[in-house]
Amino acid sequence: MIINLKGTEKVYDAPRSVADIALDISEGLRRVALCGKVDGVLVDLSYVVDHDASVEIITFKDEEGKRVYNHSCAHVLAQAVKAVFPTVKLAIGPAIENGFYYDFDFLTPPTQEDLGRIEAEMQQIIKANLPFRREEVSRAKALKMMETFGENYKVELINDLPEDATISLYYQGDFVDLCAGPHIPSTGMIKAFRLTSLTGAYWRGSEKNKMLSRIYGTAFDKKSELEAYLQRIEEAKMRDHNKVGRDLEIFMTSEVVGQGLPIMMPKGAKVLQILQRFVEDEEERRGFMLTKTPYMAKSDLYKISGHWDHYRDKMFVLGEESTGEEMMALRPMTCPFQYQIYKNGMKSYRDLPCRYAETATLFRNEASGEMHGLIRVRQFTLADGHTICTKEQLEEEFKRSLEMSYYFLDCLGMREDVSFRFSKWDPNKTEKYVDDPVAWETTQDIMRNILNHLGIDYVEADDEAAFYGPKLDVQAKNVHGKEDTIITIQIDFCSAERFEMVYTDVDGEKKTPYIIHRSSIGCYERTLAMLIEKYNGALPVWLSPVQAKVCSFTCRTVDAAKKLAEELTYLGVRCELDTRDEKVGKKVRDALLEKVPYILVLGDRDVEKGVISVRDARNEGKVSEMTKEEFVALIRQKFADKK
Amino acid sequence: MIINLKGTEKVYDAPRSVADIALDISEGLRRVALCGKVDGVLVDLSYVVDHDASVEIITFKDEEGKRVYNHSCAHVLAQAVKAVFPTVKLAIGPAIENGFYYDFDFLTPPTQEDLGRIEAEMQQIIKANLPFRREEVSRAKALKMMETFGENYKVELINDLPEDATISLYYQGDFVDLCAGPHIPSTGMIKAFRLTSLTGAYWRGSEKNKMLSRIYGTAFDKKSELEAYLQRIEEAKMRDHNKVGRDLEIFMTSEVVGQGLPIMMPKGAKVLQILQRFVEDEEERRGFMLTKTPYMAKSDLYKISGHWDHYRDKMFVLGEESTGEEMMALRPMTCPFQYQIYKNGMKSYRDLPCRYAETATLFRNEASGEMHGLIRVRQFTLADGHTICTKEQLEEEFKRSLEMSYYFLDCLGMREDVSFRFSKWDPNKTEKYVDDPVAWETTQDIMRNILNHLGIDYVEADDEAAFYGPKLDVQAKNVHGKEDTIITIQIDFCSAERFEMVYTDVDGEKKTPYIIHRSSIGCYERTLAMLIEKYNGALPVWLSPVQAKVCSFTCRTVDAAKKLAEELTYLGVRCELDTRDEKVGKKVRDALLEKVPYILVLGDRDVEKGVISVRDARNEGKVSEMTKEEFVALIRQKFADKK
Repeated sequence: MIINLKGTEKVYDAPRSVADIALDISEGLRRVALCGKVDGVLVDLSYVVDHDASVEIITFKDEEGKRVYNHSCAHVLAQAVKAVFPTVKLAIGPAIENGFYYDFDFLTPPTQEDLGRIEAEMQQIIKANLPFRREEVSRAKALKMMETFGENYKVELINDLPEDATISLYYQGDFVDLCAGPHIPSTGMIKAFRLTSLTGAYWRGSEKNKMLSRIYGTAFDKKSELEAYLQRIEEAKMRDHNKVGRDLEIFMTSEVVGQGLPIMMPKGAKVLQILQRFVEDEEERRGFMLTKTPYMAKSDLYKISGHWDHYRDKMFVLGEESTGEEMMALRPMTCPFQYQIYKNGMKSYRDLPCRYAETATLFRNEASGEMHGLIRVRQFTLADGHTICTKEQLEEEFKRSLEMSYYFLDCLGMREDVSFRFSKWDPNKTEKYVDDPVAWETTQDIMRNILNHLGIDYVEADDEAAFYGPKLDVQAKNVHGKEDTIITIQIDFCSAERFEMVYTDVDGEKKTPYIIHRSSIGCYERTLAMLIEKYNGALPVWLSPVQAKVCSFTCRTVDAAKKLAEELTYLGVRCELDTRDEKVGKKVRDALLEKVPYILVLGDRDVEKGVISVRDARNEGKVSEMTKEEFVALIRQKFADKK
Repeated sequence: MIINLKGTEKVYDAPRSVADIALDISEGLRRVALCGKVDGVLVDLSYVVDHDASVEIITFKDEEGKRVYNHSCAHVLAQAVKAVFPTVKLAIGPAIENGFYYDFDFLTPPTQEDLGRIEAEMQQIIKANLPFRREEVSRAKALKMMETFGENYKVELINDLPEDATISLYYQGDFVDLCAGPHIPSTGMIKAFRLTSLTGAYWRGSEKNKMLSRIYGTAFDKKSELEAYLQRIEEAKMRDHNKVGRDLEIFMTSEVVGQGLPIMMPKGAKVLQILQRFVEDEEERRGFMLTKTPYMAKSDLYKISGHWDHYRDKMFVLGEESTGEEMMALRPMTCPFQYQIYKNGMKSYRDLPCRYAETATLFRNEASGEMHGLIRVRQFTLADGHTICTKEQLEEEFKRSLEMSYYFLDCLGMREDVSFRFSKWDPNKTEKYVDDPVAWETTQDIMRNILNHLGIDYVEADDEAAFYGPKLDVQAKNVHGKEDTIITIQIDFCSAERFEMVYTDVDGEKKTPYIIHRSSIGCYERTLAMLIEKYNGALPVWLSPVQAKVCSFTCRTVDAAKKLAEELTYLGVRCELDTRDEKVGKKVRDALLEKVPYILVLGDRDVEKGVISVRDARNEGKVSEMTKEEFVALIRQKFADKK
């Protein structure tokens, strides 16, 4: 029996467990081995290899090792919860990125305090160093056992398994769980863990099902690693735009208004106003024509576009179909509205490329569990646009759109933070996509060629396209590491035909154009969220809602401070005034907390000399003396430089 | 029997008909007399006065005379339609401003062509000079007669009359109609009439009822008056923004998008962008803080504000109440959303007045018959705002809001076009208004005092207030003479309490503020419509979507024209280029049709000399020669002057 171990070979004359193979390599490796991988399949250490095979020994250093480790810790959690709350029912408990969770059906949902009791019980289980033991059983036995235990969720899971599935149980001590495995050899191998949070989660992710309690946790092979991880999480929470944005009064939410509907307070509205004007002007400079189209339409429009068939469950629908009244819906995108403008009047090849842009409010009926701050919302504002062009113009126009997005990313300082995804259809999901395989392949080839020409470093992803064509997605990660699409450029091969959009070519023939769907700076709310997290609220000066805080040093300089603030405002600097009867140290500290970039303190001597003391909060609080004119010039330069 | 005739008295010894009294005054008056007014009640000329009374003889010079005249013409129309289409059923046929209409239920709705046949038949009826004859009948007789005729709409009308109502029929020839009268003596008195249009109209104005055919017409006592009127109407139609705005590609509508949802094309979007930036900047300069709040909310919010009770039928509601799901609605106004921002954090007297402004998209579910161009729509953009202040600050803040509106009206050249209406509640309609008579009277007194202090020339109007307080409405008429509110400033005495909005006063007490609801420039779409009609599409230069059309004189100057257009664009002039291979005369004519204010023609000599020939389309096409710099300065001056 020949065992291939990443290149080197070992020959054994009898079957051997993975554990023994590890031991054969080194005692150290055996000690840290968590499981094995035989011919590409993860198995327990106790798995016996009885044929020629390639074998890997998996440790915590491997991504797969971390997952098995965390998954085993989820079983420990389940055992502990069963011990503390014997009436609980178990749902599922997988490993996830950076940890694990387990969903439980409690008679009474647990509190944050209960997590401490559960952690203590887990410590006992780990201390007892219970071995994980696998047993393969028949479907009948598995069902009977879970029915006896009253574990109805497990029963449902077993019933949903394919007929030929291997069904396995994993035991540790007196606890047993339905599980495909593998697991670490024993509970004692878990060196450090923490239960991190508690939320609600629907069984199988569907609102139609019961709301369960989900306990999140994470496990590491060293205490120091766990501590470092928890600190990173804590820091991420502190930088989360959902906290910072509220603290800085950029946005708020209201229980009576509803979820996913952030309210932009004056500071947030100011940043969006600056961005919107900047984007609209730049788009115009690059040949786009601004439009302003309605936020709702009759179902007729969405039936032509295909949204009524492919996207209806994400739309806010108005009217009751059963009563026969006119059905309308809030728009989830701008495309079919801008197409109406194209269709107003005849178009010839001279009119192409025809570029429309809009600061477009869009609505998507997100499920309540999915909403988050400014990133996942029910109403948002997209810098949207459509270029209608000939096939020959596709590459040039695609490039123009991409270059414009590059420019905006540069201006926001985010160019280095993004990656690119070439999102394709899934030929097996014809209900989700326009069912025209030839057009898909052709258009995907066109896009791939363009991307390669432009030298873009992208990954390809199946089943991520729009229903009407492939996309280039510009991806960015939020502070928690979750990746989202912030900008997208798409080639649409079918909508022009559906909407009977044509142009008369040089030869007098009516032809159907292509359409590029593109965003320039993305969704304003989401982009703002990314900016807040990137800069931890200290936005670049050109975007800061308040650029300068003018503080009087004593009551003698209150009038001078007021005058200065008025003059600066007139000259286009966004100012706030602090003439409270407080120590100047307190005023400066408050301004720093508000992340104001420049703090202008006016004392008697400054007034006498006709200068301002400017504290640069973004530059270690360095204080310089400058004239009003110099300060205004500095602010203008920041705008010009987008700094 | 003493008859008082506007001051002079006549004494008769026996009862006398109004016709005879007219004859007694003069033969000329008898000839033009249409009806009479006895003790303030309109009656037929044949009415016999048998007691002391004040009597007026009504002619076409009187407003009431015009209405009776037109109403009689409506009967002639009904008789003619019955003659041409014997199966038609009659609904109602009142006089209206400038004319009359009659609603019919046709088996097959008539066409525009049928109107000619009907007019010819009306001419015959007028030529026959049939007298109008009144007959008072019992309810039973009236019902029996209308049932026999199969006039089910009339039957419904009779059944709805109060029990003690006098029921009268009017005959002319073999035609009879249910009618309270009065009428002119005979059909021959109608000297000039025209059927002007044909539309659909629901029976009793309700969408739930059958759609009838409404024929509009108008009648005058002189042919020349009719012609003059028709010409005015024709001119008004030509200036109607609903025509001009489409011709100039400012906006369009789309059947598949729906009624009341105008699509702003690039030129319209550009004008709105200019206006919006101008308004937002000026509002900020005047101490308002910009917000951006969501376009929908849970019903919870509207229940607090009172909109759910007082305004729900005008709102777009999301969700089905019967299924118990969360109900939401698109917002018909911004107020309760901005209140949430006020409520975020404690407020003290130092924070007041607290002024919020928003370029707010609002939605109102108008009935389909009521929609018109950009004036009556289902989605619109209001320059909305709310000032939260103490009672003592009310006058100063009201004045600030009014002065800001004056400023905007000045900038649009519309200051002289508006009138003011002080809109009060109706104490008898407590279901329509917040039921607090003392607060209403107090607040109305406050507002009346402010208006008098400010020396505003206003009319008072009952039953026109908002449900939460009195309003000052700035009224303007459209090209058809229809008056609409374009700007409103309101004092709200109850919302702060409902929303539990408070401030801490100097004495440490929690107090409830007042709220001023105000628009600055009104609804952008409606204001744009007024501007288009006022200027017949030739918007002031500072608002023109295209300020200059650069035309090459020959093919030799095409490149120079392109370069000039690029340079002007860079310098902030909104340019379009015309380098078509066309005669320059054609290019100029096209630019004039597009209402472009300046037409720049570039010939060889201009290029040589380095100048531009500027044709000023707003100044009789005067042509001046100027340098590029001079032209840019001219455009900038226009912006500064808002000309």
